[in-house]
Amino acid sequence: MPTISSKAVNMPASPIRKLVPFSEAAKKQGRKVYHLNIGQPDIETPEVVMNSIRATDLKVIEYSNSEGMAAYRQGLTAYYKSKDIQLDVADIMITTGGSEALVFAFMTCLNPGDEVIIPEPFYANYNGFAVMAGVKVVPVTANIDNGFALPPIADFEKKITANTKGILICNPGNPTGYLYTKEELEQLRELVIKHNLFLFADEVYREFMYDGAIPHSVMNLEGLEQHAVMIDSISKRYSMCGARIGAMVSRNKEVMSAALKFAQARLSPPTFGQLAGIAALDTPQEYFDGVVNEYVKRRDILVKGLNSIDGVICPNPQGAFYCIAELPIDDSDAFCQWILEKFEYNNQTVMMAPATGFYATPGLGKNQVRLAYVLNEESLHNALICLEHALKAYPGRTN
Amino acid sequence: MPTISSKAVNMPASPIRKLVPFSEAAKKQGRKVYHLNIGQPDIETPEVVMNSIRATDLKVIEYSNSEGMAAYRQGLTAYYKSKDIQLDVADIMITTGGSEALVFAFMTCLNPGDEVIIPEPFYANYNGFAVMAGVKVVPVTANIDNGFALPPIADFEKKITANTKGILICNPGNPTGYLYTKEELEQLRELVIKHNLFLFADEVYREFMYDGAIPHSVMNLEGLEQHAVMIDSISKRYSMCGARIGAMVSRNKEVMSAALKFAQARLSPPTFGQLAGIAALDTPQEYFDGVVNEYVKRRDILVKGLNSIDGVICPNPQGAFYCIAELPIDDSDAFCQWILEKFEYNNQTVMMAPATGFYATPGLGKNQVRLAYVLNEESLHNALICLEHALKAYPGRTN
Repeated sequence: MPTISSKAVNMPASPIRKLVPFSEAAKKQGRKVYHLNIGQPDIETPEVVMNSIRATDLKVIEYSNSEGMAAYRQGLTAYYKSKDIQLDVADIMITTGGSEALVFAFMTCLNPGDEVIIPEPFYANYNGFAVMAGVKVVPVTANIDNGFALPPIADFEKKITANTKGILICNPGNPTGYLYTKEELEQLRELVIKHNLFLFADEVYREFMYDGAIPHSVMNLEGLEQHAVMIDSISKRYSMCGARIGAMVSRNKEVMSAALKFAQARLSPPTFGQLAGIAALDTPQEYFDGVVNEYVKRRDILVKGLNSIDGVICPNPQGAFYCIAELPIDDSDAFCQWILEKFEYNNQTVMMAPATGFYATPGLGKNQVRLAYVLNEESLHNALICLEHALKAYPGRTN
Repeated sequence: MPTISSKAVNMPASPIRKLVPFSEAAKKQGRKVYHLNIGQPDIETPEVVMNSIRATDLKVIEYSNSEGMAAYRQGLTAYYKSKDIQLDVADIMITTGGSEALVFAFMTCLNPGDEVIIPEPFYANYNGFAVMAGVKVVPVTANIDNGFALPPIADFEKKITANTKGILICNPGNPTGYLYTKEELEQLRELVIKHNLFLFADEVYREFMYDGAIPHSVMNLEGLEQHAVMIDSISKRYSMCGARIGAMVSRNKEVMSAALKFAQARLSPPTFGQLAGIAALDTPQEYFDGVVNEYVKRRDILVKGLNSIDGVICPNPQGAFYCIAELPIDDSDAFCQWILEKFEYNNQTVMMAPATGFYATPGLGKNQVRLAYVLNEESLHNALICLEHALKAYPGRTN
């Protein structure tokens, strides 16, 4: 029997999915499981999208251009303009989700063996994309005490080697919900120019900003025209994760033209998803206002609720729909499994993501979990009660 | 300015797309261009598919399972059974087109530096997937004189080194239209077992079989349960290339479980495409009968027409909807550009794919082109007249 590749062996399993068998088992026993573990919003997709899909008169579901439908890319320039990001059509390539955009960006910009610095905790699938590209992830640790602000630039400098070729940030952040300030981005800008690096920025949560906060895109950092590669996706923006439509955005023409070769090899991004994306451009502002109001309510319930539990600390996130909470526990992997496997309160329990999967430094995140506030208020309320009781009952409680 | 990766530099440009500027220019001059260059069929997608999409009552376009929707995978086992391929649900992973299936298969089974042997001419994008995985393509040359039958096993043996880890075939073949016999597949089976290799088989043209020919799947080769990885796609089967739905199929549980990690990193295949795929399972047999009849008519017109042109040789393909024709020309790249740029007959011209892009051995394919018979009879007829006149006028004619 031939052996699988070392890449396949090294490929990390999803830190969330490994708990799925336990949540399935809990459900089989008749328990209600509150899913705070994943970023699948329950928010409805805009009506304009579903109406447009239902009204399709397509006769042949053809390939589109590899770089995406011209009308869609054109429409996106107007969308970005409304976010104060001035782009040409040529700066935008449509991809199969933000995932593919990041794989293309890594493969285009980084050689196997190159290093990319990422503030941790970070979106766990970055590890998988790095393995696919043969790239080494070098973490710089952010701290829960300041809400996971950008680590000091000196910490980045310490990690820079001859192999460092890029920095990857997620802004607003998954899993932290932290929004980088203009000043923090300016610091990154200096660093990137000083060491001639690529700056990859995953900005897929741009619409999810609270308390009047304003997101700053790397596309607006002066002097980074040749360095900045922005990753985007419409999965969360319009609650259409299954459309699998994202974008790779850069003003670096060499990067875009090389990335197009990867795009051509896989022929085209999904046609229905792009049609949905085009229709979504007409989503009324009220939709977003409603969504943001809903998430603010949910965040407030969750974060206040968490901080009111004895021994729990949770910074108040300004963006996205995740938070990282510190719990009085010995081991978040063990706890997240235990609460599904061994615990119930009024026949209910909670599924969370152990934060260990979001850190690259071994040992970090053992007393932290990621929670997504993608459930309605009542569910969040019940989930918090469950969690409070679980922490009292958990044998590995630390204080 | 940071430099792009060597992978990006080595990534081949599509041999077809590089002619697009010339066809666009010809169209701008008011010329009719017959597109024999690409595998985008003009056949309509089955009505059951479009009706199902129009009837969708989806409220949220959610992620599906990373391995694909359970109902779809279950439905596919029945489809494969109808093709005499017995599979379990666990043997099937849904992918974003056949392209992604092959990338996952390469990354799962092959290490960077490993070699995969492919009979040439082969589907040009295999090169791109190999670059992405860091894998070296080693060609074994098939011959137009026997219709691109499997090269002698001795030729494969000569190419096997310590780094050889797999063989990739496309059956029925793109770009050759050749259908491997049971005997040829048995020979490959012996070779694969002898050297403990993976056998990757791209079988996406299974439905396109003519003259009563029967396709033989690698999934039915005894003793290859741990070696065979089949690549599938519904792009051509139902004329829905833009759905971007394919499958990676293997009974090797280690391979499937490792491939799932790559699938989880990119979250899920497209939701609409999978819904279209589920609906397509109910496509009536008459649809396929009609399609096959249409392609037989087209093939007969094209192949007979080609062979009746002075100096042209074209084997009669038994499957898929491509053929490779030998033309009396010096350089197929130059010719395919010239016919778009400098030639017109009654204000019409033809776009073809130079066969050089389908060979890995430098210099081969210079007197060959690939033609796809995806146009209606009248267009094929006109295209043939154009080609005949073009060959008379072409300055680089060789005899």
